[in-house]
Amino acid sequence: DFLVALQEVTPAFGASTDDLERCRINGIVDCGERHSHIYRRTMLLAEQVKVSKGSPLITCLLEGPSGSGKTAMAATIGIESDFPYVKIISAESMIGLSEGSKCAQIVKVFEDAYKSPLSIIILDDIERLIEYVAIGPRFSNLISQTLLVLLKRLPPKGKNVLVIGTTSEVNFLKMIGIRDAFSVTYHIPTLGTEDARKVLQQLKVFSDDDVDSAAEALNDMPIKMLYMVVEMAAQGEQGGEAEAIYSGRQKIKINHFLNC
Amino acid sequence: DFLVALQEVTPAFGASTDDLERCRINGIVDCGERHSHIYRRTMLLAEQVKVSKGSPLITCLLEGPSGSGKTAMAATIGIESDFPYVKIISAESMIGLSEGSKCAQIVKVFEDAYKSPLSIIILDDIERLIEYVAIGPRFSNLISQTLLVLLKRLPPKGKNVLVIGTTSEVNFLKMIGIRDAFSVTYHIPTLGTEDARKVLQQLKVFSDDDVDSAAEALNDMPIKMLYMVVEMAAQGEQGGEAEAIYSGRQKIKINHFLNC
Amino acid sequence: DFLVALQEVTPAFGASTDDLERCRINGIVDCGERHSHIYRRTMLLAEQVKVSKGSPLITCLLEGPSGSGKTAMAATIGIESDFPYVKIISAESMIGLSEGSKCAQIVKVFEDAYKSPLSIIILDDIERLIEYVAIGPRFSNLISQTLLVLLKRLPPKGKNVLVIGTTSEVNFLKMIGIRDAFSVTYHIPTLGTEDARKVLQQLKVFSDDDVDSAAEALNDMPIKMLYMVVEMAAQGEQGGEAEAIYSGRQKIKINHFLNC
Amino acid sequence: DFLVALQEVTPAFGASTDDLERCRINGIVDCGERHSHIYRRTMLLAEQVKVSKGSPLITCLLEGPSGSGKTAMAATIGIESDFPYVKIISAESMIGLSEGSKCAQIVKVFEDAYKSPLSIIILDDIERLIEYVAIGPRFSNLISQTLLVLLKRLPPKGKNVLVIGTTSEVNFLKMIGIRDAFSVTYHIPTLGTEDARKVLQQLKVFSDDDVDSAAEALNDMPIKMLYMVVEMAAQGEQGGEAEAIYSGRQKIKINHFLNC
Amino acid sequence: DFLVALQEVTPAFGASTDDLERCRINGIVDCGERHSHIYRRTMLLAEQVKVSKGSPLITCLLEGPSGSGKTAMAATIGIESDFPYVKIISAESMIGLSEGSKCAQIVKVFEDAYKSPLSIIILDDIERLIEYVAIGPRFSNLISQTLLVLLKRLPPKGKNVLVIGTTSEVNFLKMIGIRDAFSVTYHIPTLGTEDARKVLQQLKVFSDDDVDSAAEALNDMPIKMLYMVVEMAAQGEQGGEAEAIYSGRQKIKINHFLNC
Amino acid sequence: DFLVALQEVTPAFGASTDDLERCRINGIVDCGERHSHIYRRTMLLAEQVKVSKGSPLITCLLEGPSGSGKTAMAATIGIESDFPYVKIISAESMIGLSEGSKCAQIVKVFEDAYKSPLSIIILDDIERLIEYVAIGPRFSNLISQTLLVLLKRLPPKGKNVLVIGTTSEVNFLKMIGIRDAFSVTYHIPTLGTEDARKVLQQLKVFSDDDVDSAAEALNDMPIKMLYMVVEMAAQGEQGGEAEAIYSGRQKIKINHFLNC
Ligand SMILES: Nc1ncnc2c1ncn2[C@@H]1O[C@H](COP(=O)(O)OP(=O)(O)OP(=O)(O)O)[C@@H](O)[C@H]1O
Ligand SMILES: Nc1ncnc2c1ncn2[C@@H]1O[C@H](COP(=O)(O)OP(=O)(O)OP(=O)(O)O)[C@@H](O)[C@H]1O
Ligand SMILES: Nc1ncnc2c1ncn2[C@@H]1O[C@H](COP(=O)(O)OP(=O)(O)OP(=O)(O)O)[C@@H](O)[C@H]1O
Ligand SMILES: Nc1ncnc2c1ncn2[C@@H]1O[C@H](COP(=O)(O)OP(=O)(O)OP(=O)(O)O)[C@@H](O)[C@H]1O
Ligand SMILES: Nc1ncnc2c1ncn2[C@@H]1O[C@H](COP(=O)(O)OP(=O)(O)OP(=O)(O)O)[C@@H](O)[C@H]1O
Ligand SMILES: Nc1ncnc2c1ncn2[C@@H]1O[C@H](COP(=O)(O)OP(=O)(O)OP(=O)(O)O)[C@@H](O)[C@H]1O
Ligand SMILES: [Mg+2]
Ligand SMILES: [Mg+2]
Ligand SMILES: [Mg+2]
Ligand SMILES: [Mg+2]
Ligand SMILES: [Mg+2]
Ligand SMILES: [Mg+2]
Repeated sequence: DFLVALQEVTPAFGASTDDLERCRINGIVDCGERHSHIYRRTMLLAEQVKVSKGSPLITCLLEGPSGSGKTAMAATIGIESDFPYVKIISAESMIGLSEGSKCAQIVKVFEDAYKSPLSIIILDDIERLIEYVAIGPRFSNLISQTLLVLLKRLPPKGKNVLVIGTTSEVNFLKMIGIRDAFSVTYHIPTLGTEDARKVLQQLKVFSDDDVDSAAEALNDMPIKMLYMVVEMAAQGEQGGEAEAIYSGRQKIKINHFLNC
Repeated sequence: DFLVALQEVTPAFGASTDDLERCRINGIVDCGERHSHIYRRTMLLAEQVKVSKGSPLITCLLEGPSGSGKTAMAATIGIESDFPYVKIISAESMIGLSEGSKCAQIVKVFEDAYKSPLSIIILDDIERLIEYVAIGPRFSNLISQTLLVLLKRLPPKGKNVLVIGTTSEVNFLKMIGIRDAFSVTYHIPTLGTEDARKVLQQLKVFSDDDVDSAAEALNDMPIKMLYMVVEMAAQGEQGGEAEAIYSGRQKIKINHFLNC
Repeated sequence: DFLVALQEVTPAFGASTDDLERCRINGIVDCGERHSHIYRRTMLLAEQVKVSKGSPLITCLLEGPSGSGKTAMAATIGIESDFPYVKIISAESMIGLSEGSKCAQIVKVFEDAYKSPLSIIILDDIERLIEYVAIGPRFSNLISQTLLVLLKRLPPKGKNVLVIGTTSEVNFLKMIGIRDAFSVTYHIPTLGTEDARKVLQQLKVFSDDDVDSAAEALNDMPIKMLYMVVEMAAQGEQGGEAEAIYSGRQKIKINHFLNC
Repeated sequence: DFLVALQEVTPAFGASTDDLERCRINGIVDCGERHSHIYRRTMLLAEQVKVSKGSPLITCLLEGPSGSGKTAMAATIGIESDFPYVKIISAESMIGLSEGSKCAQIVKVFEDAYKSPLSIIILDDIERLIEYVAIGPRFSNLISQTLLVLLKRLPPKGKNVLVIGTTSEVNFLKMIGIRDAFSVTYHIPTLGTEDARKVLQQLKVFSDDDVDSAAEALNDMPIKMLYMVVEMAAQGEQGGEAEAIYSGRQKIKINHFLNC
Repeated sequence: DFLVALQEVTPAFGASTDDLERCRINGIVDCGERHSHIYRRTMLLAEQVKVSKGSPLITCLLEGPSGSGKTAMAATIGIESDFPYVKIISAESMIGLSEGSKCAQIVKVFEDAYKSPLSIIILDDIERLIEYVAIGPRFSNLISQTLLVLLKRLPPKGKNVLVIGTTSEVNFLKMIGIRDAFSVTYHIPTLGTEDARKVLQQLKVFSDDDVDSAAEALNDMPIKMLYMVVEMAAQGEQGGEAEAIYSGRQKIKINHFLNC
Repeated sequence: DFLVALQEVTPAFGASTDDLERCRINGIVDCGERHSHIYRRTMLLAEQVKVSKGSPLITCLLEGPSGSGKTAMAATIGIESDFPYVKIISAESMIGLSEGSKCAQIVKVFEDAYKSPLSIIILDDIERLIEYVAIGPRFSNLISQTLLVLLKRLPPKGKNVLVIGTTSEVNFLKMIGIRDAFSVTYHIPTLGTEDARKVLQQLKVFSDDDVDSAAEALNDMPIKMLYMVVEMAAQGEQGGEAEAIYSGRQKIKINHFLNC
């Protein structure tokens, strides 16, 4: 059953960069020093995989609050690394599949990767891949076991793989042993005031005078929520102002913004 | 299996407005300022979806006690928005289906929506869609996971979607992560005395003198229960008076009403 | 599967009155004021359904201890209402069926009812319909969800339905949300001394002198148990006296009765 | 599935008395006044069923410690009642069957009974029929629900049925509502000293002098264990004495007996 | 399904003694008075079965710590009893079978036994037969129920059966009612110092001077572990001495032994 | 089903040494006295199996923290023992298989082993073989029961087997009875300072002066993590230094190392 399912999954080369780009539809802005530091460390791991003698498999987990930019960072590393095989495994493309078929899809990506001398595999939103829900908790043990084994299984001789996982449920992953199956774990934080100011300056929707109080108000927010709040404010109190804001003709009124 | 089920679901355009109108069979009366405020905010979100650059998907949850008017409001927004594709997903049309078939139906609606430049999808009574029951609690994790993914999956380029969910079990939805998968959440309250008076005046079944004490008695009631109580009172003590009341020839006797 | 099951259930008109009569094989005696009051209120609901403008569906739950006469009352209302479609849904006729088939049967009755301008559906012993058992507790969530949806789904335009449910496990039904899905709930009590005396007088098995002490002894008993105790006493200490009692030739000896 | 199973069960008339006799392979001895009292009361119920106007179904539960003689008593009543249809339903004849097939067998017996004007059905060891095990506890809800319905369903007009259940797990049956589904419940006790003496006198394996001290030692024992202990003692200390004892040539040595 | 499985199991006569002998591959040594006492009592039960009038079925449970010699004793009784049908039911011969097939195998052995006038059935390691694991605890209720019924079901007229069960999880068996389904239960202990000395003397691997301190060190050990420790010691500190020890040319060095 | 699965598994001789070598891709370095001691004891067990009279089956469990070198040690013993049949059973080669198929694979290896006079079977990462996850906990009881039986079942006459298990979840294995099914258990520790120094000296990536402080920093680390940390440090602060380090032209800068 499983093997049949495995067969039916057709290999997918090349399409992957598109998938990765979709993870950063707003492009990438500088999110401050803490984000940058993790980015550099993870790029070093990619380099280590390239030259490694004794570690053909390195695994790295990016964890942090929902919307903090984990997937965007993993995608960026995948794109920048210039590895011949880069693939993101995400629940989006497996909606409604049975546990067994999901396993087959995941295994397939690893098998494909083993054919390339250098690969990056992104396991996006691991809690969603394993169908986690806090009540119970419930999750797919079949998929969990598959991940536990894949995170330890060495690629064939001469093939090197970097696996990047993302999650906003790191405590749960720890409980089921998946966090400790990764070689290293990095925490992607929300934006501090300083980080938020940097982001706002790049967005150019506030007048220079208002950036500081806006950043103060957005302190400790994930970047995703920052975008949402700014966009709601850009509508204006009665709607209809968005175009003027985005075209740069107008700035967001700081008082309206602070009420959002 | 799932894919087959998916295929078999035939697209359904046009019929939707009928479905939406059935959610407001008594028409719409003014339920007071708190209801109106939420209505306006949600209409602003619909506008934001129309003009958005970076947020092709906005999701909004209406939560509140049973019978408080959530579905009626969502339907009204769907009708008033003038979006080309508006569709309500409700447990009523999926009685007795397996979890898998329900998933397929839900996914199908999203896939259809992705073909329209602007869409509204109403996920009505989410706890019922996921077959929630408080004991256990039990619920369909398959459908929950599907919703969790669909609430985050971006539509294809150039397609924008507003998802409106309704629920009277917001605490449960929070526990399983569905509430936080929505961008914003609004609370639809029961009617305060002031709201109830406004509604009663529009119904015209009490004499002007009695409206105040009737509104007082109906304080803190969902609009659905208000309608039920008024209608029971309209029967009169021995039955048979309803027609006279509804035709306006007679008013409800306040004393009989207060005994109901 | 479910749909096939649905198809296979052939419509059943007309036979229903027989089913209802079987619920009152001993006929109906006057059980006192509290029973009568509930009877009248429920008959008023039937009238309300007939004339209602905005409430095509009214739902009413009769709850109370086992054997207190709930089913008999629901059946009586069904018979007296003179509605063209009256149907009782009971676990008796679904022994050994799978959850899915039971659902199909239940849905079928509602679908049939939607074809009649006026209908009464009796959901008898709801805890038995949903296969409830206190340990766990366990129950069929499939059937529960079906009932939850059916109790809220509006009939087609121009069709009005009264649903009467009965249960002796109202606390459980509350926990799973079924009790609150009903518009109104009435409590059918056991017989007080006064009620028991009234019943005994109608049975004519005690001498006038003994009725009072017998009623005292039967205080706070459901009517079903009253019948059982009286019948056991009617056998006499050594058996063989029943015929004489029932034919009226002899009365039950009060001392023997008090020992039962 | 269930219906097919139901069909396949072929009716079984006549063979039943054999089954009943096997429940009392040692014959019946007098177990003292408490056993006799229950026997007489249950025989009265059989008579009540015969003459009843309003109770075509009477149900009676015999409960008590394992080996206290419940099954033997039920079988005796079945044999002595002279009812045309008497049938014992026991787990022995359903080893290894699925829950569904067991249900079908049970339902079949009731259906067969409905064809006879007077029937006795013995539900032997109900906890075993429903596959009860204390850990969990676990049990078959399918069979439990079937019993709950069958214990309340009225036979067709003109057919009267007495159901006798036996159990040594009355507390569990109470928890799942089966005990209260019976009209009456009787407790079959272990043997007190007086009862044990009576039994021993009938067995004639002790000298008259020893009966008293033997009865004292066997106080508060179920009759089954009494038989086992006596038989072990009858072997003698080194074995080989049994024949002499049973043929009456020798008596059990009281000292050896007290050591067993 | 079950019945088919039952059919497919072909009868197995004669092979049994081989199976029994394999349970005592080291032969039988005298394990002290407590073991001998239980052996004699159980042999008496075998005799009782032979001559019994009223107890065609006697059941006896041997319980005790793992490796204490329960299976070896049961096998020995099976061999020494000279019954025409002796069969051991063990998990070893049912690896990987479904619960249903295991049931069928077990039932088959009983059915075969019913064809012989005298039989012994050994239910070896009952917790393993029912797939017990302490966490949960989990176990096969299907097999448990089958055993519960088989342990009470009387063989056909003229056929007598002795069932010997073994277990090292007697508390668990008590909880699920299996222990109390046996007529008698005996506890097989570990070896006390006195018992251990007796065993060591028979093994002849220590010099007479060392037997006492060795026995002291082995106090309160199951016989299986005693064998293992002695054999490890027989290897010598650097290995290679085993042959000399077993051939009797050399004795185990007591100091090395005490370090093991 | 199971038997079919069993058949389909084709025997696998000879390939095993490859599998074993892959468990030590970095070769073997001396990990200090505690590791060596366990290695020698386990080799003695292999010898004992060879010469044993009464113990054709010896089972040994290596337990310790993740990455401490258990699998590498088991593989080394398998290679060094020179037994004709050596086979490792690992979850890696059974990804996605059903419980039943995994059982069949495991049983197959044992059956193959029974055909060789001397065999070693390595059950690698037993918690992974039985699909253990800490939450619940959940695990495959089917596989657990199979292991419990296989760990006790004697090979056929003249065939001797050594089973070596590895695990980092020894407490869990104890709870489900698997740990106690092994004859002996050894604990493989992390590296103490002394052990770490020994390993580092063999790696030759630190200058002699830095080895001490590096070993101090690596105290109490499993060997796997030691390798990872050293390799990360070998990259240098900006990357690009690895080649120079591994070729011996350069040493790791101790300060950079201590920051890793
Ligand atoms: N550095 C960045 N510059 C610009 N936009 C960003 C950046 N990082 C993230 N975003 C945007 O913020 C949103 C959230 O980012 P992303 O999906 O990566 O977060 P996440 O941590 O993976 O969230 P989740 O936990 O929900 O998966 C996305 O729309 C993404 O495009
Ligand atoms: N503004 C309104 N004017 C008139 N009728 C209304 C209004 N809002 C709701 N109703 C009516 O009140 C009843 C309950 O409303 P609705 O079904 O929207 O509530 P709900 O909050 O979705 O309830 P539930 O939690 O049971 O789904 C309906 O009959 C609806 O037609
Ligand atoms: N008013 C009445 N007059 C005469 N007999 C009655 C009356 N009400 C109930 N009975 C009889 O009493 C018995 C129990 O009544 P019924 O079955 O309606 O009770 P119930 O509350 O539905 O019990 P349960 O909870 O077991 O379903 C029946 O035999 C019924 O015929
Ligand atoms: N009155 C009696 N006279 C002689 N033997 C009896 C009598 N009652 C019971 N026995 C015998 O005692 C044994 C146990 O009786 P029985 O099986 O009826 O007990 P039980 O209460 O049904 O036990 P369980 O709870 O195990 O089903 C049987 O062998 C039966 O033949
Ligand atoms: N009396 C004896 N003389 C010699 N060897 C014995 C004796 N009793 C047991 N043994 C041996 O000791 C070992 C353990 O005995 P056995 O398997 O009977 O124990 P057990 O209590 O059944 O263990 P478990 O609980 O693991 O099933 C076996 O190898 C058996 O051959
Ligand atoms: N003595 C050794 N010399 C050199 N390398 C070793 C030695 N022991 C282990 N290793 C290496 O260390 C790593 C971890 O070893 P191994 O896989 O045996 O650990 P483990 O205890 O089995 O871990 P796990 O619990 O994850 O299964 C492997 O890469 C292995 O090659
Ligand atoms: Mg993400
Ligand atoms: Mg609603
Ligand atoms: Mg009823
Ligand atoms: Mg019995
Ligand atoms: Mg044993
Ligand atoms: Mg390992």
